[in-house]
Amino acid sequence: MNRVPTWADIEAAHARIRPHIHRTPVLTSTSLNELAGCEVYFKCENFQRIGAFKARGGMNAVLSLSLAEQQRGITTHSSGNHAQAIALAAKVVGTKAYIVMPSTAPAIKKNGVRVLGGEIIECPPTLAAREAGVAEVMARTGATFIHPFNNYAVIAGQATAAVELLEEVPDLQTVMAPVGGGGLLSGTALTVHYRRPTAQVIAGEPAGAADAVLSFRSGRIEQAPYINTIADGLLTSLGDKTLPIIRQHVKEIYTVSDDEIIVAMRLIWERLKIIIEPSCAVPFAALLQQKEQFTGQKVGIILTGGNVDLNHLPF
Amino acid sequence: MNRVPTWADIEAAHARIRPHIHRTPVLTSTSLNELAGCEVYFKCENFQRIGAFKARGGMNAVLSLSLAEQQRGITTHSSGNHAQAIALAAKVVGTKAYIVMPSTAPAIKKNGVRVLGGEIIECPPTLAAREAGVAEVMARTGATFIHPFNNYAVIAGQATAAVELLEEVPDLQTVMAPVGGGGLLSGTALTVHYRRPTAQVIAGEPAGAADAVLSFRSGRIEQAPYINTIADGLLTSLGDKTLPIIRQHVKEIYTVSDDEIIVAMRLIWERLKIIIEPSCAVPFAALLQQKEQFTGQKVGIILTGGNVDLNHLPF
Repeated sequence: MNRVPTWADIEAAHARIRPHIHRTPVLTSTSLNELAGCEVYFKCENFQRIGAFKARGGMNAVLSLSLAEQQRGITTHSSGNHAQAIALAAKVVGTKAYIVMPSTAPAIKKNGVRVLGGEIIECPPTLAAREAGVAEVMARTGATFIHPFNNYAVIAGQATAAVELLEEVPDLQTVMAPVGGGGLLSGTALTVHYRRPTAQVIAGEPAGAADAVLSFRSGRIEQAPYINTIADGLLTSLGDKTLPIIRQHVKEIYTVSDDEIIVAMRLIWERLKIIIEPSCAVPFAALLQQKEQFTGQKVGIILTGGNVDLNHLPF
Repeated sequence: MNRVPTWADIEAAHARIRPHIHRTPVLTSTSLNELAGCEVYFKCENFQRIGAFKARGGMNAVLSLSLAEQQRGITTHSSGNHAQAIALAAKVVGTKAYIVMPSTAPAIKKNGVRVLGGEIIECPPTLAAREAGVAEVMARTGATFIHPFNNYAVIAGQATAAVELLEEVPDLQTVMAPVGGGGLLSGTALTVHYRRPTAQVIAGEPAGAADAVLSFRSGRIEQAPYINTIADGLLTSLGDKTLPIIRQHVKEIYTVSDDEIIVAMRLIWERLKIIIEPSCAVPFAALLQQKEQFTGQKVGIILTGGNVDLNHLPF
């Protein structure tokens, strides 16, 4: 797909992936609403297959390939949820997934890919080595590379989480998502633009990986001044496909400290009784920081994932 | 209510409490199904109001009282979820809740009652002192005592969790619940008996509080040989109202060790991404222990609650 997804593209993505993903529930909590001063509707993508929304984008990108392309296999470089998303999608279409992963990736991440039948190609932990690893796989196998976020089919897939959220709660006034590379945020912003144009889209970003807010202001892809945050799913910079969509359709990006992220994460664990990873708590942390803006509103938040190491909790 | 609940009683209870409780989701996990060798449908009462199924029974019991009774207030003794259930129900009908609690109860439990507007009466940590405390409240205020489980209106309320589970998954072959005092188990067994008589009801009980399995065999209310378990919501013995229903309609009670409970709890946290308390993991632990019995079946499990202290996790 070589254009910014239209509403028809997003609808088609939803129809395409629906048999292979979960329709995740939307949860609310009276006590969190009282605390936040607004009605918050949490779209629980931590319950998604592979434990994260990334199953949507990876699935749509793989299912959108031609049969010939699918048969040659899929490749990507990722040490996170996108690796499992691609392995799952490849399994669904019955092809090979070649996942280039830094040798330093945790065993649990490697195992998640292997359980889904993915082949891991280890490389040194640098971006150059990861890209070289993918290039080698492509040359050797003819596999198609699927970027974790800077890919319109991935963006259209991620956009379907907000489609389901708006089906359940049509009259939201604000929709919030975290921002890393911007795949989820740009997809969410497109869906809200097409389906609920009166609602505003607000993003949260860790202060310790604050590149998106800089890019949002300057219009260029910026690097974070420093990287130091517990929200390890949100470290990447935006891409040239995600940045323009975000600048056009997102109202604001707020940065939150790790302390604010941990407070928000713990509140969601305790009150909603669900397990979310630190990156996932970022938009709710932003809501609490800026709560006077949202008083009395209906706010939707996309909870992105629940893949957290129970042996290393921040509380 | 002075009879074993009929199906009409359970339906009436459901209609009565529905505006005041959550309809909780039913979750499944491909990876847990593979592990268990059967299809497991988890009814998530950890997402219920007050974080536990007890909201159902307390609500039905209070709403079933006459207006005059309601106005004189409600009392109970409990240091657990039933205390909050009664406080919530009293708040809903606009009356007072007098909760007799041992002075040793954790501050978090007392606070949970106070936040709901309940009045706490502290007493020494013995059953005799708790009963004396309730008697004093009743004499002074005319409040009605609502027993945590040995009460037919409470049983009819707890029975509604299985009603919703069977509405979502009508063709279950086994329904599982934990057993403490037996309110949930007897209610669940009645619902399955009325609505899905071909399904079997199986209970799990901690080996370190194994009174119900003894009572189930002997027909008398037995005490546990010893009390030593992490499943602190399941310490009580059965009552004279719950035992006969359980003997008539439950097929088997399996006991599980604390190690088995902790493994099951962690699996549910990791795979379902939800927070459950140790007592809540007991039926799934029993399923894993006895898995060859359930191969290929559709099994429903009532997850009872999610009130756990994140500062004191067993893993």
